[in-house]
Amino acid sequence: MNSAKPTLEVCFCPPLFKHKLTQEHYITVVVDILRASTSICTALFNGANKIIPVPTVEMAATFVGKGNLIAGERDGAKLEIADLGNSPFQFSAENVSGRNIVMTTTNGTHTIELAKSSDQIVIGAFVNISVLTQWLIEQNKNAVIFCSGWKNKFNLEDTAFAGALAERLLASGNFNNICDSASAALDLWSIAKLDLNTYINKALHHQRLTRMGFEDVIPYCLSNDLAPVVPILKDNEIVKV
Amino acid sequence: MNSAKPTLEVCFCPPLFKHKLTQEHYITVVVDILRASTSICTALFNGANKIIPVPTVEMAATFVGKGNLIAGERDGAKLEIADLGNSPFQFSAENVSGRNIVMTTTNGTHTIELAKSSDQIVIGAFVNISVLTQWLIEQNKNAVIFCSGWKNKFNLEDTAFAGALAERLLASGNFNNICDSASAALDLWSIAKLDLNTYINKALHHQRLTRMGFEDVIPYCLSNDLAPVVPILKDNEIVKV
Repeated sequence: MNSAKPTLEVCFCPPLFKHKLTQEHYITVVVDILRASTSICTALFNGANKIIPVPTVEMAATFVGKGNLIAGERDGAKLEIADLGNSPFQFSAENVSGRNIVMTTTNGTHTIELAKSSDQIVIGAFVNISVLTQWLIEQNKNAVIFCSGWKNKFNLEDTAFAGALAERLLASGNFNNICDSASAALDLWSIAKLDLNTYINKALHHQRLTRMGFEDVIPYCLSNDLAPVVPILKDNEIVKV
Repeated sequence: MNSAKPTLEVCFCPPLFKHKLTQEHYITVVVDILRASTSICTALFNGANKIIPVPTVEMAATFVGKGNLIAGERDGAKLEIADLGNSPFQFSAENVSGRNIVMTTTNGTHTIELAKSSDQIVIGAFVNISVLTQWLIEQNKNAVIFCSGWKNKFNLEDTAFAGALAERLLASGNFNNICDSASAALDLWSIAKLDLNTYINKALHHQRLTRMGFEDVIPYCLSNDLAPVVPILKDNEIVKV
Protein backbone atom coordinates (compact mmCIF):
# COMPACT_ATOMS: atom_id res chain seq x y z
CA MET A 1 0.00 0.00 0.00
CA ASN A 2 1.37 3.38 -1.01
CA SER A 3 0.46 5.49 1.99
CA ALA A 4 1.10 8.68 0.04
CA LYS A 5 -2.06 8.09 -2.00
CA PRO A 6 -5.41 9.50 -0.90
CA THR A 7 -7.66 7.02 0.86
CA LEU A 8 -11.03 5.70 -0.28
CA GLU A 9 -13.81 4.73 2.13
CA VAL A 10 -17.45 3.75 1.65
CA CYS A 11 -20.16 4.52 4.20
CA PHE A 12 -23.29 2.39 3.72
CA CYS A 13 -25.85 4.61 5.42
CA PRO A 14 -26.24 7.66 7.67
CA PRO A 15 -25.92 6.03 11.15
CA LEU A 16 -22.44 4.81 10.15
CA PHE A 17 -21.08 8.14 8.94
CA LYS A 18 -19.66 9.29 12.24
CA HIS A 19 -18.05 5.87 12.81
CA LYS A 20 -16.42 5.51 9.43
CA LEU A 21 -13.76 8.12 9.48
CA THR A 22 -10.12 7.33 9.74
CA GLN A 23 -9.08 10.57 8.05
CA GLU A 24 -9.49 14.14 9.21
CA HIS A 25 -9.79 15.67 5.74
CA TYR A 26 -11.83 14.21 2.93
CA ILE A 27 -14.26 14.93 0.13
CA THR A 28 -17.66 13.29 0.57
CA VAL A 29 -19.59 11.98 -2.42
CA VAL A 30 -23.27 11.91 -1.45
CA VAL A 31 -25.23 9.16 -3.21
CA ASP A 32 -28.99 8.61 -3.46
CA ILE A 33 -29.43 6.86 -6.79
CA LEU A 34 -33.24 6.44 -6.53
CA ARG A 35 -33.63 9.37 -6.88
CA ALA A 36 -32.22 12.54 -5.24
CA SER A 37 -28.63 12.46 -6.44
CA THR A 38 -29.74 11.54 -9.97
CA SER A 39 -32.26 14.39 -9.94
CA ILE A 40 -29.69 16.94 -8.71
CA CYS A 41 -27.29 16.03 -11.53
CA THR A 42 -30.16 16.18 -14.02
CA ALA A 43 -31.37 19.57 -12.81
CA LEU A 44 -27.94 21.19 -13.05
CA PHE A 45 -27.25 19.56 -16.42
CA ASN A 46 -30.55 20.97 -17.66
CA GLY A 47 -29.60 24.50 -16.68
CA ALA A 48 -30.92 24.99 -13.16
CA ASN A 49 -29.07 27.87 -11.54
CA LYS A 50 -28.59 26.21 -8.16
CA ILE A 51 -30.18 23.75 -5.76
CA ILE A 52 -30.69 24.61 -2.10
CA PRO A 53 -30.94 21.33 -0.15
CA VAL A 54 -32.88 21.53 3.10
CA PRO A 55 -33.36 18.63 5.50
CA THR A 56 -36.95 19.31 6.60
CA VAL A 57 -40.32 20.04 5.01
CA GLU A 58 -40.70 22.96 7.41
CA MET A 59 -37.53 24.57 6.08
CA ALA A 60 -38.66 24.02 2.49
CA ALA A 61 -41.98 25.70 3.32
CA THR A 62 -40.21 28.92 4.29
CA PHE A 63 -39.06 29.27 0.65
CA VAL A 64 -42.55 29.03 -0.86
CA GLY A 65 -43.72 32.08 -2.84
CA LYS A 66 -40.26 33.65 -3.11
CA GLY A 67 -39.52 32.85 -6.74
CA ASN A 68 -37.93 29.44 -6.13
CA LEU A 69 -39.04 26.11 -7.47
CA ILE A 70 -39.81 23.78 -4.57
CA ALA A 71 -38.92 20.11 -5.09
CA GLY A 72 -39.74 17.65 -2.39
CA GLU A 73 -40.92 14.20 -1.45
CA ARG A 74 -41.43 12.08 1.60
CA ASP A 75 -41.70 8.30 1.33
CA GLY A 76 -41.52 8.70 -2.45
CA ALA A 77 -44.58 10.98 -2.83
CA LYS A 78 -44.45 14.65 -3.89
CA LEU A 79 -45.05 17.12 -1.07
CA GLU A 80 -48.16 19.26 -1.29
CA ILE A 81 -46.12 22.45 -1.05
CA ALA A 82 -43.82 21.33 -3.88
CA ASP A 83 -43.81 22.25 -7.57
CA LEU A 84 -41.80 19.14 -8.40
CA GLY A 85 -41.43 15.71 -6.80
CA ASN A 86 -38.18 13.76 -6.92
CA SER A 87 -38.37 12.20 -10.37
CA PRO A 88 -35.40 13.21 -12.53
CA PHE A 89 -37.81 13.46 -15.48
CA GLN A 90 -39.43 16.47 -13.77
CA PHE A 91 -36.10 18.32 -13.81
CA SER A 92 -36.29 19.00 -17.55
CA ALA A 93 -34.72 22.07 -19.15
CA GLU A 94 -38.23 23.39 -19.68
CA ASN A 95 -39.01 23.13 -15.98
CA VAL A 96 -35.72 24.13 -14.38
CA SER A 97 -33.54 26.20 -16.74
CA GLY A 98 -32.35 29.36 -15.00
CA ARG A 99 -34.29 28.55 -11.82
CA ASN A 100 -33.26 28.16 -8.19
CA ILE A 101 -34.59 24.91 -6.71
CA VAL A 102 -35.21 24.29 -3.02
CA MET A 103 -35.10 20.53 -2.45
CA THR A 104 -36.01 18.25 0.45
CA THR A 105 -36.17 14.46 0.16
CA THR A 106 -36.60 11.47 2.48
CA ASN A 107 -32.95 10.50 2.48
CA GLY A 108 -30.65 12.44 0.16
CA THR A 109 -30.93 15.91 1.64
CA HIS A 110 -30.54 14.46 5.15
CA THR A 111 -27.29 12.80 4.03
CA ILE A 112 -25.99 16.12 2.69
CA GLU A 113 -26.69 17.70 6.09
CA LEU A 114 -24.71 14.98 7.90
CA ALA A 115 -21.81 15.29 5.46
CA LYS A 116 -21.19 18.94 6.26
CA SER A 117 -18.19 17.99 8.42
CA SER A 118 -16.40 17.17 5.15
CA ASP A 119 -13.94 19.48 3.41
CA GLN A 120 -16.16 19.36 0.31
CA ILE A 121 -19.41 17.69 -0.69
CA VAL A 122 -20.16 16.59 -4.23
CA ILE A 123 -23.10 14.61 -5.58
CA GLY A 124 -22.66 11.22 -7.25
CA ALA A 125 -24.90 9.12 -9.47
CA PHE A 126 -24.57 6.84 -12.45
CA VAL A 127 -25.66 9.77 -14.64
CA ASN A 128 -22.45 11.67 -13.78
CA ILE A 129 -20.04 8.83 -12.95
CA SER A 130 -17.34 9.55 -15.56
CA VAL A 131 -16.95 13.27 -14.95
CA LEU A 132 -17.14 12.70 -11.20
CA THR A 133 -14.41 10.05 -11.35
CA GLN A 134 -12.16 12.35 -13.32
CA TRP A 135 -12.81 15.27 -10.97
CA LEU A 136 -12.08 13.18 -7.86
CA ILE A 137 -8.81 11.94 -9.35
CA GLU A 138 -7.78 15.52 -10.11
CA GLN A 139 -8.45 16.67 -6.52
CA ASN A 140 -5.96 14.11 -5.16
CA LYS A 141 -7.71 14.12 -1.76
CA ASN A 142 -9.19 11.43 0.49
CA ALA A 143 -12.69 10.43 -0.62
CA VAL A 144 -15.68 8.97 1.22
CA ILE A 145 -18.58 7.60 -0.82
CA PHE A 146 -21.58 8.18 1.44
CA CYS A 147 -24.70 6.17 0.55
CA SER A 148 -28.00 7.63 1.71
CA GLY A 149 -29.74 4.27 2.01
CA TRP A 150 -33.41 4.30 3.00
CA LYS A 151 -34.43 5.69 6.37
CA ASN A 152 -31.10 4.88 7.99
CA LYS A 153 -30.92 1.42 6.44
CA PHE A 154 -28.53 -0.04 3.90
CA ASN A 155 -29.77 -0.26 0.32
CA LEU A 156 -28.58 -2.11 -2.75
CA GLU A 157 -28.78 0.62 -5.37
CA ASP A 158 -26.57 3.13 -3.56
CA THR A 159 -24.08 0.40 -2.68
CA ALA A 160 -23.93 -0.81 -6.28
CA PHE A 161 -23.04 2.74 -7.32
CA ALA A 162 -20.45 2.98 -4.53
CA GLY A 163 -18.87 -0.17 -5.94
CA ALA A 164 -18.96 1.20 -9.50
CA LEU A 165 -17.29 4.45 -8.48
CA ALA A 166 -14.78 2.68 -6.20
CA GLU A 167 -13.85 0.36 -9.06
CA ARG A 168 -13.04 3.32 -11.30
CA LEU A 169 -11.14 5.24 -8.61
CA LEU A 170 -9.03 2.23 -7.60
CA ALA A 171 -8.43 1.27 -11.25
CA SER A 172 -6.94 4.73 -11.74
CA GLY A 173 -4.22 3.77 -9.28
CA ASN A 174 -4.71 7.05 -7.42
CA PHE A 175 -6.49 5.79 -4.27
CA ASN A 176 -5.96 3.27 -1.48
CA ASN A 177 -9.00 1.30 -0.32
CA ILE A 178 -8.86 1.33 3.48
CA CYS A 179 -12.18 -0.26 4.51
CA ASP A 180 -14.13 -3.50 4.37
CA SER A 181 -17.23 -1.58 3.22
CA ALA A 182 -15.49 -0.57 0.00
CA SER A 183 -14.37 -4.18 -0.53
CA ALA A 184 -17.95 -5.38 -0.09
CA ALA A 185 -19.31 -2.68 -2.43
CA LEU A 186 -16.79 -3.76 -5.07
CA ASP A 187 -17.93 -7.38 -4.72
CA LEU A 188 -21.58 -6.42 -4.92
CA TRP A 189 -20.87 -4.31 -8.01
CA SER A 190 -18.99 -7.21 -9.64
CA ILE A 191 -22.29 -9.11 -9.58
CA ALA A 192 -24.65 -6.19 -10.22
CA LYS A 193 -22.82 -4.85 -13.27
CA LEU A 194 -23.45 -8.01 -15.24
CA ASP A 195 -27.06 -6.82 -15.64
CA LEU A 196 -27.69 -3.78 -13.47
CA ASN A 197 -31.37 -3.26 -14.27
CA THR A 198 -32.22 -6.86 -13.45
CA TYR A 199 -30.05 -6.78 -10.33
CA ILE A 200 -31.79 -3.71 -8.94
CA ASN A 201 -35.19 -5.39 -9.39
CA LYS A 202 -34.60 -7.08 -6.06
CA ALA A 203 -33.92 -3.81 -4.21
CA LEU A 204 -36.70 -2.94 -1.78
CA HIS A 205 -36.83 0.65 -3.04
CA HIS A 206 -37.31 -0.55 -6.60
CA GLN A 207 -40.33 -2.44 -5.36
CA ARG A 208 -41.52 0.62 -3.41
CA LEU A 209 -41.24 2.92 -6.45
CA THR A 210 -42.95 0.35 -8.65
CA ARG A 211 -45.92 0.15 -6.26
CA MET A 212 -46.19 3.96 -6.54
CA GLY A 213 -46.00 3.90 -10.35
CA PHE A 214 -42.58 5.60 -10.45
CA GLU A 215 -40.63 2.72 -11.96
CA ASP A 216 -40.31 4.48 -15.33
CA VAL A 217 -37.34 6.52 -14.03
CA ILE A 218 -35.29 3.56 -12.85
CA PRO A 219 -33.49 2.71 -16.12
CA TYR A 220 -32.51 6.39 -16.43
CA CYS A 221 -31.19 6.41 -12.85
CA LEU A 222 -29.03 3.37 -13.66
CA SER A 223 -27.57 4.79 -16.90
CA ASN A 224 -24.05 6.18 -17.11
CA ASP A 225 -23.22 9.75 -18.05
CA LEU A 226 -26.59 11.12 -19.12
CA ALA A 227 -26.11 14.24 -16.96
CA PRO A 228 -22.33 14.84 -17.00
CA VAL A 229 -21.89 17.56 -14.41
CA VAL A 230 -20.22 17.58 -10.97
CA PRO A 231 -22.61 19.15 -8.45
CA ILE A 232 -20.76 20.67 -5.49
CA LEU A 233 -22.02 22.25 -2.28
CA LYS A 234 -20.86 25.87 -1.84
CA ASP A 235 -22.30 28.08 0.89
CA ASN A 236 -25.15 25.61 1.38
CA GLU A 237 -26.12 25.71 -2.28
CA ILE A 238 -25.40 23.04 -4.88
CA VAL A 239 -23.92 24.39 -8.10
CA LYS A 240 -21.94 22.98 -11.01
CA VAL A 241 -18.17 22.75 -10.47
CA MET B 1 -43.94 -13.79 -0.75
CA ASN B 2 -45.71 -15.94 1.80
CA SER B 3 -46.35 -13.49 4.59
CA ALA B 4 -47.13 -16.29 7.02
CA LYS B 5 -43.47 -17.27 7.09
CA PRO B 6 -41.08 -15.81 9.66
CA THR B 7 -38.94 -12.96 8.39
CA LEU B 8 -35.18 -12.85 8.00
CA GLU B 9 -33.13 -9.67 8.39
CA VAL B 10 -29.41 -8.96 8.53
CA CYS B 11 -27.90 -6.11 10.56
CA PHE B 12 -24.36 -5.22 9.47
CA CYS B 13 -23.09 -3.58 12.65
CA PRO B 14 -24.18 -2.20 16.01
CA PRO B 15 -25.15 1.39 15.02
CA LEU B 16 -27.73 -0.07 12.61
CA PHE B 17 -29.43 -2.40 15.08
CA LYS B 18 -32.05 0.01 16.31
CA HIS B 19 -32.85 1.06 12.73
CA LYS B 20 -33.20 -2.38 11.24
CA LEU B 21 -36.30 -3.70 12.86
CA THR B 22 -39.52 -4.13 11.03
CA GLN B 23 -40.76 -6.80 13.44
CA GLU B 24 -41.61 -6.58 17.10
CA HIS B 25 -40.63 -10.14 17.99
CA TYR B 26 -37.54 -11.89 16.76
CA ILE B 27 -34.61 -14.09 17.67
CA THR B 28 -31.23 -12.41 17.29
CA VAL B 29 -28.20 -14.39 16.13
CA VAL B 30 -25.10 -12.56 17.39
CA VAL B 31 -22.09 -13.00 15.12
CA ASP B 32 -18.43 -12.17 15.74
CA ILE B 33 -16.55 -14.69 13.64
CA LEU B 34 -13.03 -13.41 14.49
CA ARG B 35 -13.31 -14.42 17.29
CA ALA B 36 -15.87 -14.06 20.09
CA SER B 37 -18.77 -16.05 18.67
CA THR B 38 -16.42 -18.81 17.53
CA SER B 39 -14.83 -18.92 20.98
CA ILE B 40 -18.19 -19.06 22.77
CA CYS B 41 -19.30 -22.06 20.69
CA THR B 42 -15.94 -23.72 21.25
CA ALA B 43 -16.04 -23.18 25.02
CA LEU B 44 -19.52 -24.68 25.41
CA PHE B 45 -18.70 -27.54 23.06
CA ASN B 46 -15.63 -28.27 25.18
CA GLY B 47 -17.68 -28.52 28.35
CA ALA B 48 -17.69 -25.04 29.86
CA ASN B 49 -20.61 -24.74 32.27
CA LYS B 50 -21.68 -21.27 31.18
CA ILE B 51 -20.35 -17.99 29.81
CA ILE B 52 -21.23 -14.68 31.43
CA PRO B 53 -20.80 -11.95 28.82
CA VAL B 54 -20.08 -8.49 30.17
CA PRO B 55 -19.67 -5.36 28.06
CA THR B 56 -16.89 -3.63 30.03
CA VAL B 57 -13.50 -4.48 31.47
CA GLU B 58 -14.62 -2.91 34.75
CA MET B 59 -17.50 -5.36 35.02
CA ALA B 60 -15.21 -8.28 34.21
CA ALA B 61 -12.84 -7.14 36.96
CA THR B 62 -15.57 -7.51 39.59
CA PHE B 63 -15.58 -11.28 38.88
CA VAL B 64 -11.83 -11.79 39.49
CA GLY B 65 -10.90 -14.13 42.34
CA LYS B 66 -14.37 -15.64 42.68
CA GLY B 67 -13.72 -19.00 41.02
CA ASN B 68 -14.54 -17.93 37.48
CA LEU B 69 -12.28 -18.03 34.48
CA ILE B 70 -11.90 -14.51 33.07
CA ALA B 71 -11.65 -14.27 29.27
CA GLY B 72 -11.13 -10.90 27.71
CA GLU B 73 -9.48 -8.83 25.05
CA ARG B 74 -9.45 -5.29 23.78
CA ASP B 75 -8.18 -4.49 20.29
CA GLY B 76 -7.27 -8.15 19.93
CA ALA B 77 -4.90 -8.37 22.93
CA LYS B 78 -5.60 -10.34 26.13
CA LEU B 79 -6.54 -8.22 29.12
CA GLU B 80 -4.14 -8.20 32.05
CA ILE B 81 -6.88 -9.35 34.43
CA ALA B 82 -7.84 -12.26 32.16
CA ASP B 83 -6.93 -15.95 32.35
CA LEU B 84 -7.75 -16.40 28.67
CA GLY B 85 -7.74 -14.08 25.66
CA ASN B 86 -10.18 -14.47 22.80
CA SER B 87 -8.55 -17.24 20.78
CA PRO B 88 -10.87 -20.24 20.40
CA PHE B 89 -7.79 -22.47 20.87
CA GLN B 90 -7.59 -21.27 24.48
CA PHE B 91 -11.09 -22.61 25.15
CA SER B 92 -9.91 -26.23 25.16
CA ALA B 93 -11.61 -28.91 27.25
CA GLU B 94 -8.54 -28.92 29.48
CA ASN B 95 -8.93 -25.19 30.16
CA VAL B 96 -12.69 -24.78 30.36
CA SER B 97 -14.47 -28.05 31.16
CA GLY B 98 -16.88 -27.55 34.05
CA ARG B 99 -15.88 -23.90 34.47
CA ASN B 100 -17.87 -20.65 34.45
CA ILE B 101 -16.30 -18.10 32.10
CA VAL B 102 -16.72 -14.33 32.38
CA MET B 103 -16.07 -12.84 28.94
CA THR B 104 -15.58 -9.33 27.63
CA THR B 105 -14.40 -8.57 24.09
CA THR B 106 -14.00 -5.50 21.87
CA ASN B 107 -17.10 -6.15 19.81
CA GLY B 108 -18.98 -9.38 20.47
CA THR B 109 -20.03 -8.85 24.08
CA HIS B 110 -21.13 -5.29 23.23
CA THR B 111 -23.34 -6.70 20.47
CA ILE B 112 -24.95 -9.12 22.92
CA GLU B 113 -25.75 -6.21 25.23
CA LEU B 114 -27.46 -4.29 22.40
CA ALA B 115 -29.44 -7.34 21.34
CA LYS B 116 -31.17 -7.71 24.70
CA SER B 117 -34.35 -6.19 23.25
CA SER B 118 -34.77 -9.48 21.35
CA ASP B 119 -37.05 -12.32 22.42
CA GLN B 120 -34.02 -14.62 22.44
CA ILE B 121 -30.31 -14.32 21.72
CA VAL B 122 -28.25 -17.15 20.27
CA ILE B 123 -24.64 -17.17 19.12
CA GLY B 124 -23.70 -17.96 15.52
CA ALA B 125 -20.43 -18.92 13.87
CA PHE B 126 -19.25 -21.19 11.09
CA VAL B 127 -18.28 -23.72 13.76
CA ASN B 128 -21.97 -24.20 14.70
CA ILE B 129 -23.74 -23.27 11.45
CA SER B 130 -25.57 -26.55 10.79
CA VAL B 131 -27.05 -27.08 14.25
CA LEU B 132 -27.89 -23.38 14.46
CA THR B 133 -29.70 -23.48 11.11
CA GLN B 134 -31.73 -26.48 12.21
CA TRP B 135 -32.59 -24.90 15.56
CA LEU B 136 -33.71 -21.62 13.93
CA ILE B 137 -35.94 -23.48 11.48
CA GLU B 138 -37.52 -25.38 14.36
CA GLN B 139 -38.30 -22.20 16.29
CA ASN B 140 -40.38 -20.85 13.37
CA LYS B 141 -39.83 -17.26 14.53
CA ASN B 142 -38.52 -14.08 12.90
CA ALA B 143 -34.73 -14.00 12.87
CA VAL B 144 -32.19 -11.17 12.77
CA ILE B 145 -28.56 -11.99 12.03
CA PHE B 146 -26.64 -9.30 13.91
CA CYS B 147 -23.01 -8.83 12.86
CA SER B 148 -20.69 -7.32 15.46
CA GLY B 149 -18.37 -5.72 12.93
CA TRP B 150 -15.31 -3.92 14.27
CA LYS B 151 -15.77 -0.88 16.48
CA ASN B 152 -19.13 0.03 14.99
CA LYS B 153 -17.97 -0.56 11.43
CA PHE B 154 -19.02 -3.13 8.86
CA ASN B 155 -16.69 -6.10 8.39
CA LEU B 156 -16.37 -8.78 5.74
CA GLU B 157 -16.04 -11.90 7.89
CA ASP B 158 -19.26 -11.42 9.86
CA THR B 159 -21.14 -10.49 6.70
CA ALA B 160 -19.85 -13.57 4.87
CA PHE B 161 -21.23 -15.68 7.71
CA ALA B 162 -24.53 -13.79 7.63
CA GLY B 163 -24.77 -14.67 3.95
CA ALA B 164 -23.92 -18.32 4.61
CA LEU B 165 -26.57 -18.63 7.31
CA ALA B 166 -29.15 -16.66 5.29
CA GLU B 167 -28.53 -18.94 2.31
CA ARG B 168 -29.31 -22.01 4.41
CA LEU B 169 -32.36 -20.47 6.10
CA LEU B 170 -33.86 -19.26 2.82
CA ALA B 171 -33.07 -22.55 1.07
CA SER B 172 -35.12 -24.29 3.74
CA GLY B 173 -38.16 -22.41 2.44
CA ASN B 174 -39.09 -21.42 5.99
CA PHE B 175 -38.12 -17.71 5.94
CA ASN B 176 -38.86 -14.58 3.92
CA ASN B 177 -35.95 -12.23 3.25
CA ILE B 178 -37.25 -8.73 3.92
CA CYS B 179 -34.14 -6.54 3.66
CA ASP B 180 -31.52 -5.33 1.22
CA SER B 181 -28.79 -6.14 3.76
CA ALA B 182 -29.62 -9.84 3.60
CA SER B 183 -29.59 -9.67 -0.21
CA ALA B 184 -26.15 -8.05 -0.14
CA ALA B 185 -24.84 -10.61 2.38
CA LEU B 186 -26.06 -13.43 0.11
CA ASP B 187 -24.24 -11.87 -2.85
CA LEU B 188 -21.06 -11.40 -0.85
CA TRP B 189 -21.26 -15.01 0.33
CA SER B 190 -21.76 -16.24 -3.24
CA ILE B 191 -18.28 -14.86 -3.98
CA ALA B 192 -16.65 -15.63 -0.63
CA LYS B 193 -17.71 -19.29 -0.50
CA LEU B 194 -15.72 -20.14 -3.61
CA ASP B 195 -12.59 -19.93 -1.45
CA LEU B 196 -13.44 -18.57 1.97
CA ASN B 197 -9.95 -18.54 3.47
CA THR B 198 -8.53 -16.61 0.53
CA TYR B 199 -11.52 -14.27 0.48
CA ILE B 200 -11.10 -13.34 4.15
CA ASN B 201 -7.43 -12.49 3.55
CA LYS B 202 -8.59 -9.08 2.40
CA ALA B 203 -10.59 -8.38 5.56
CA LEU B 204 -9.01 -5.66 7.70
CA HIS B 205 -9.39 -7.74 10.86
CA HIS B 206 -7.55 -10.64 9.24
CA GLN B 207 -4.69 -8.24 8.64
CA ARG B 208 -4.97 -6.93 12.22
CA LEU B 209 -4.85 -10.44 13.73
CA THR B 210 -1.97 -11.38 11.47
CA ARG B 211 0.06 -8.38 12.64
CA MET B 212 -0.54 -9.58 16.22
CA GLY B 213 0.49 -13.16 15.41
CA PHE B 214 -3.03 -14.54 15.93
CA GLU B 215 -3.65 -15.68 12.36
CA ASP B 216 -3.32 -19.35 13.30
CA VAL B 217 -6.95 -19.42 14.49
CA ILE B 218 -8.48 -18.05 11.31
CA PRO B 219 -8.88 -21.32 9.35
CA TYR B 220 -10.60 -22.83 12.43
CA CYS B 221 -12.93 -19.80 12.69
CA LEU B 222 -13.91 -20.29 9.03
CA SER B 223 -14.60 -24.04 9.31
CA ASN B 224 -18.10 -25.47 9.47
CA ASP B 225 -19.45 -27.49 12.36
CA LEU B 226 -16.36 -28.00 14.51
CA ALA B 227 -18.27 -26.94 17.67
CA PRO B 228 -21.86 -28.06 17.02
CA VAL B 229 -23.74 -26.47 19.90
CA VAL B 230 -26.35 -23.68 20.03
CA PRO B 231 -25.32 -21.14 22.68
CA ILE B 232 -28.32 -19.24 24.05
CA LEU B 233 -28.55 -16.35 26.51
CA LYS B 234 -30.65 -17.19 29.58
CA ASP B 235 -30.73 -14.87 32.60
CA ASN B 236 -27.66 -13.05 31.26
CA GLU B 237 -25.67 -16.26 31.00
CA ILE B 238 -24.84 -18.15 27.82
CA VAL B 239 -25.53 -21.88 28.03
CA LYS B 240 -26.09 -24.71 25.57
CA VAL B 241 -29.66 -25.10 24.28
